Amino acid sequence: MVDSVLMAELTWPEFAAKVKENVPVLLPLGTTEQHGPHMSLNVDVVLPTGVCERVARNVGGIVAPTIPYGYKSMPRSGGGEAFPGTTSLDANTFSLVVRDVIRSLGHHGVRRLVVVNGHFENSWPAVEGVDLGLRELRRDGIADMQLMRLEYWDFVRRETLDRLFPDGFPGTELEHASLLETSLMLLLRPDLVDMSKIPSDGPAKFPTYDKFPIPDGFVPASGVLARAQGSTAEKGQWLMDDHVELITKAVRIEFGL
Amino acid sequence: MVDSVLMAELTWPEFAAKVKENVPVLLPLGTTEQHGPHMSLNVDVVLPTGVCERVARNVGGIVAPTIPYGYKSMPRSGGGEAFPGTTSLDANTFSLVVRDVIRSLGHHGVRRLVVVNGHFENSWPAVEGVDLGLRELRRDGIADMQLMRLEYWDFVRRETLDRLFPDGFPGTELEHASLLETSLMLLLRPDLVDMSKIPSDGPAKFPTYDKFPIPDGFVPASGVLARAQGSTAEKGQWLMDDHVELITKAVRIEFGL
Amino acid sequence: MVDSVLMAELTWPEFAAKVKENVPVLLPLGTTEQHGPHMSLNVDVVLPTGVCERVARNVGGIVAPTIPYGYKSMPRSGGGEAFPGTTSLDANTFSLVVRDVIRSLGHHGVRRLVVVNGHFENSWPAVEGVDLGLRELRRDGIADMQLMRLEYWDFVRRETLDRLFPDGFPGTELEHASLLETSLMLLLRPDLVDMSKIPSDGPAKFPTYDKFPIPDGFVPASGVLARAQGSTAEKGQWLMDDHVELITKAVRIEFGL
Amino acid sequence: MVDSVLMAELTWPEFAAKVKENVPVLLPLGTTEQHGPHMSLNVDVVLPTGVCERVARNVGGIVAPTIPYGYKSMPRSGGGEAFPGTTSLDANTFSLVVRDVIRSLGHHGVRRLVVVNGHFENSWPAVEGVDLGLRELRRDGIADMQLMRLEYWDFVRRETLDRLFPDGFPGTELEHASLLETSLMLLLRPDLVDMSKIPSDGPAKFPTYDKFPIPDGFVPASGVLARAQGSTAEKGQWLMDDHVELITKAVRIEFGL
Amino acid sequence: MVDSVLMAELTWPEFAAKVKENVPVLLPLGTTEQHGPHMSLNVDVVLPTGVCERVARNVGGIVAPTIPYGYKSMPRSGGGEAFPGTTSLDANTFSLVVRDVIRSLGHHGVRRLVVVNGHFENSWPAVEGVDLGLRELRRDGIADMQLMRLEYWDFVRRETLDRLFPDGFPGTELEHASLLETSLMLLLRPDLVDMSKIPSDGPAKFPTYDKFPIPDGFVPASGVLARAQGSTAEKGQWLMDDHVELITKAVRIEFGL
Amino acid sequence: MVDSVLMAELTWPEFAAKVKENVPVLLPLGTTEQHGPHMSLNVDVVLPTGVCERVARNVGGIVAPTIPYGYKSMPRSGGGEAFPGTTSLDANTFSLVVRDVIRSLGHHGVRRLVVVNGHFENSWPAVEGVDLGLRELRRDGIADMQLMRLEYWDFVRRETLDRLFPDGFPGTELEHASLLETSLMLLLRPDLVDMSKIPSDGPAKFPTYDKFPIPDGFVPASGVLARAQGSTAEKGQWLMDDHVELITKAVRIEFGL
Repeated sequence: MVDSVLMAELTWPEFAAKVKENVPVLLPLGTTEQHGPHMSLNVDVVLPTGVCERVARNVGGIVAPTIPYGYKSMPRSGGGEAFPGTTSLDANTFSLVVRDVIRSLGHHGVRRLVVVNGHFENSWPAVEGVDLGLRELRRDGIADMQLMRLEYWDFVRRETLDRLFPDGFPGTELEHASLLETSLMLLLRPDLVDMSKIPSDGPAKFPTYDKFPIPDGFVPASGVLARAQGSTAEKGQWLMDDHVELITKAVRIEFGL
Repeated sequence: MVDSVLMAELTWPEFAAKVKENVPVLLPLGTTEQHGPHMSLNVDVVLPTGVCERVARNVGGIVAPTIPYGYKSMPRSGGGEAFPGTTSLDANTFSLVVRDVIRSLGHHGVRRLVVVNGHFENSWPAVEGVDLGLRELRRDGIADMQLMRLEYWDFVRRETLDRLFPDGFPGTELEHASLLETSLMLLLRPDLVDMSKIPSDGPAKFPTYDKFPIPDGFVPASGVLARAQGSTAEKGQWLMDDHVELITKAVRIEFGL
Repeated sequence: MVDSVLMAELTWPEFAAKVKENVPVLLPLGTTEQHGPHMSLNVDVVLPTGVCERVARNVGGIVAPTIPYGYKSMPRSGGGEAFPGTTSLDANTFSLVVRDVIRSLGHHGVRRLVVVNGHFENSWPAVEGVDLGLRELRRDGIADMQLMRLEYWDFVRRETLDRLFPDGFPGTELEHASLLETSLMLLLRPDLVDMSKIPSDGPAKFPTYDKFPIPDGFVPASGVLARAQGSTAEKGQWLMDDHVELITKAVRIEFGL
Repeated sequence: MVDSVLMAELTWPEFAAKVKENVPVLLPLGTTEQHGPHMSLNVDVVLPTGVCERVARNVGGIVAPTIPYGYKSMPRSGGGEAFPGTTSLDANTFSLVVRDVIRSLGHHGVRRLVVVNGHFENSWPAVEGVDLGLRELRRDGIADMQLMRLEYWDFVRRETLDRLFPDGFPGTELEHASLLETSLMLLLRPDLVDMSKIPSDGPAKFPTYDKFPIPDGFVPASGVLARAQGSTAEKGQWLMDDHVELITKAVRIEFGL
Repeated sequence: MVDSVLMAELTWPEFAAKVKENVPVLLPLGTTEQHGPHMSLNVDVVLPTGVCERVARNVGGIVAPTIPYGYKSMPRSGGGEAFPGTTSLDANTFSLVVRDVIRSLGHHGVRRLVVVNGHFENSWPAVEGVDLGLRELRRDGIADMQLMRLEYWDFVRRETLDRLFPDGFPGTELEHASLLETSLMLLLRPDLVDMSKIPSDGPAKFPTYDKFPIPDGFVPASGVLARAQGSTAEKGQWLMDDHVELITKAVRIEFGL
Repeated sequence: MVDSVLMAELTWPEFAAKVKENVPVLLPLGTTEQHGPHMSLNVDVVLPTGVCERVARNVGGIVAPTIPYGYKSMPRSGGGEAFPGTTSLDANTFSLVVRDVIRSLGHHGVRRLVVVNGHFENSWPAVEGVDLGLRELRRDGIADMQLMRLEYWDFVRRETLDRLFPDGFPGTELEHASLLETSLMLLLRPDLVDMSKIPSDGPAKFPTYDKFPIPDGFVPASGVLARAQGSTAEKGQWLMDDHVELITKAVRIEFGL
């Protein structure tokens, strides 16, 4: 058998042994969503999974299977549900998935869990799923699970952002399918990026509110909200280094590793 | 970009083009579940995904991301929820996931969908998810989605089973982590099989009813319900050939391809 | 007052006394569903109730009111929802009913419960209802309910099936409104069977997958999936004898009676 | 076959023929609930079913299977959930059952439906179930179902009540397991009444509010809220005559029969 | 800061101090609903809030924020959902709101809670919400919350009703937007009453059953079900005096104050 | 009657007339939550309601009743659920409330709706509620509702923030119970602010992730996340002017007023 950080690739006795050692389990939350004409639909699966694998190696942990369908894309942060291929769940469905997975892991003895979100819109239904999962575990007599919940992109140094955006960081929301995600994909799965297809219809100019129904032209036709030009695998590496180092550090601190 | 049968690896315009051509979309339903001490937890993800990829190539279709957390394992067919690593959803949660994915795909124009189940216990909550998804689509004015729903293991020739089980086929339920699944894994992911760990505590001798709570010893301690001895990649190929050929044929007939 | 095995016919002090003695309670799960032009819509209520009454007499137990609306009929096992009179619940609704009844009985002190299913499609939502009911009871501090869950038709001797089907048993699913159910109805409620109306458009020839929407002609127009010809009350008695004897035996073993 | 007013006893073609004639369908809502030491747990099933059968005969209609598990008993109207044998559903569960049955009947063409409640506490969750059922039918393109919803006990003449209660009618809520229900049971199922067990610990003296938790002694220990003494089958006949005649009249007026 | 009986106007340390003293918390349940052409949509918010404030002052308690959207209006008690401005929740939604608020208050230490309903149709979904809330609290280890649930209008002396209705009280249901509510509004918010707009199309003559769809003319066009003529602030004071005095008394008795 | 911008203070014919004129309806989303030792629990009700009233006057619209119980407080943005008085709903409950209110308003003819959030954590469950409400309306044949959804605090000029925070704006999340909210409360409800109680234990120093369970000391003991010192009604007026002017402008643009 492989010696894998992927829980999916372990046998159940191997998993049981890991749990007995109380290793951290990382649960990546992804989705299937448009990421511009130059990247595949699985960006939000590939990136948090890639981050989690690296962190898991650092902390002796394992990575649970990535949830591949997430919460609905919003126009101002992901382009919205109208883009073909964006395949999403209702908030309650997504929260219940997170709840059930946490409950299941808790029943098997997992006591150190890190929920790593890779899709902006997942954040709040994930919060709710975590709350519901821990609530159910408490009612099942399990009150000692330690859980961290994070967005991987929040783990980046100010200097790295300054290096990446000499003219100023446009903010996390607008970074959909843009420089950060494209650079990370060039690092992890360059076969799924076609730099020649990077559009130039952005950046999006959103108002400070949501509109329903979504008006024509509200979102750049390409689905890229900011700029992807200038993305490189090297920049992806800068980001990945930050994400992995800083999350690793946080996990070690929280779990006393 | 790769020319991929995986929807996840397409850009949204590539996906949109596929949908415009009305290609079949295959949706594999898996789970994360114990499969004995000799196989990894992802057997029910690897196998239906592998079948779907091959069928998709045959029919010019694409494969949507595999759902990696399925319905709860039952003792008599999967060993039950007590085995470490078996990570499952409530029935309603799983049905809602299937519903939402079908609704999302339908809204994007998918009109030929094949739901391919790879985990026995998923069958009925998948049926419900399909029914709810199609119901919602009808209420959204989409009444013309054609949908097939199947268990991949039902697509096998009598002769193949006879060849595999000269002493008689023990039945689908008991085949958990046993000859069929092990052989298919040896074909697709031999790195995730350790033949030296195959147990000999089976086959399970189940009564014709469920018991709660699960008594000690009800399920073989290994989690293997029948026999895995004698599994080979060659036998896996026999099975895979049947699965792919027969599902391909059914898909062509149903969708007039 | 009658001395009844029907819980419905007891006063509350009589029920309380039974519970104090820890007698087994049997809960039949039925539905209202087409059973061909020769039988009434209540076959799946009459049969499990009849079986339960006989088992209850054997084991000193009582029979809770039969749930008369079950999970949706599927074309390949019950003809599907399109047949007039088939009146069904969503899976979640049905599971919640089972959950709530189990929780209620558990709160009243019932500790030996046998859930006896009489409608094929109920099987899995009943499993879920049982799991949810026991989960809630545990959270209410009640962890010692012993529960069996079964399909009554699984309790039959090989010899009996051989006697009934000299040419081979077509399998449980196809037996909808066919020889087994018709014979049992002739035994229990001959007034609800009209042998002259038995159709000859079967047996159904189903593919190994579900299709949506249901194509015309997919299901025999009569709703009878296999053959009902040759049904007799005598054959019904053979079946009933097996069902009652074997379930009685199982109940005694499990509950140490 | 029997010529039955019970939908459950019809074949599907017989049911289909009835629906084609647009006959009224009556749906009785019952429960399983304590009714004192002198009556069985099925009073709220027997009575509305009996009323419906008689009305159905009058108007050429049919009676759908009675729902046997209803909404939770409240102390001030049914004694509360603590009485052994009172077996109940959560409000949402009950409403979903009513919703699903109405939706199913509507899909089969039923356009005249009378929901006849026989358990006080069912009233409001039944209202919700009706609203949800009709809402779903409208979304399925069925907007022309005519539906009446009623409590059978509201169909009684002032004179009859005066005759029954020369000293004044204590009100519907307190009439649980008391004179009205006992008399009707003596009419319909005298075998399920034991007049010698009628208690004398009532009538209940309830405050005008609910208390949680239910204090000891809040409800008469017998579960009978008012007085059952003096119940006779003759009085039951007076009531039944009113119920049937007045409901029949209302059904005819509403449906133009 | 104000010294307020309104929980909303306390700081969290002030609220914490009140809870520590175990003061009663009153939770008013209102809705937004038509109340005739002469009164505003917030009658069912203003009245229970007004009652609660006065009771709270008497018993040293506080009033939680009034729930402003309640359960759906029914034609025979509130005119029905068709009246513009009647803005309502599904029963399950409303019950969940009540459940969650009770759970939240319970977690903060509230042990004496009085749920005061001001909208007829809220009664039963409120009962369910209370039951669900207390159930969850018990599962969270909190079993000692004392809770009263009441409709404020039930706390009135026979003599007061006789004084108000010399010709006989028409009953609570018909009193929608009529003499009682109008008089109370004249007392509390005369600026929201326009006596010149009181209609004379009532009283409603309802049958003893619900009809769907609601026929034209079923409800008086004004939305006033009985008579509002003759309403005065003085009569409102008589009612308020009864409500406050009698609820105060009940709260003191139940909580031993 | 008052001439009110509050929907709650209109009669139903007045509301109907407003709807006929297609005036914008503003729906404030609040909650009941700790806001430090110096402010009352209703800050998130008072502020969005105050903003909405002013905008409504500008655009000829009306304000629907403010939802007073919102989504659960998170430690990093509102201090978390552990603070006494923070009274919250599950995400699904809150989304259903928003859904139902939108559906109700839509059925009454409202076609211009502005959902104005006043509690940070409400944002995403409100998004979901809006999506569900509009989905249901479409299924009910109403597809032309125009809806805006916004957080009022996003409508502020850069210059205003610079004026308020000469040393740099700490960000919206940390602004809980701090300078912005305190200044606005001093403007609208100075009676509910006690400047002498402003704590100095902040600002909070949060990591970039959530922790469960919440460690001691994670949140400042006061519940104030940043600094409230220096708050004045004048600063509140600066903010209010921005909020009202900019939201007014957006509403006019979107609705073509």
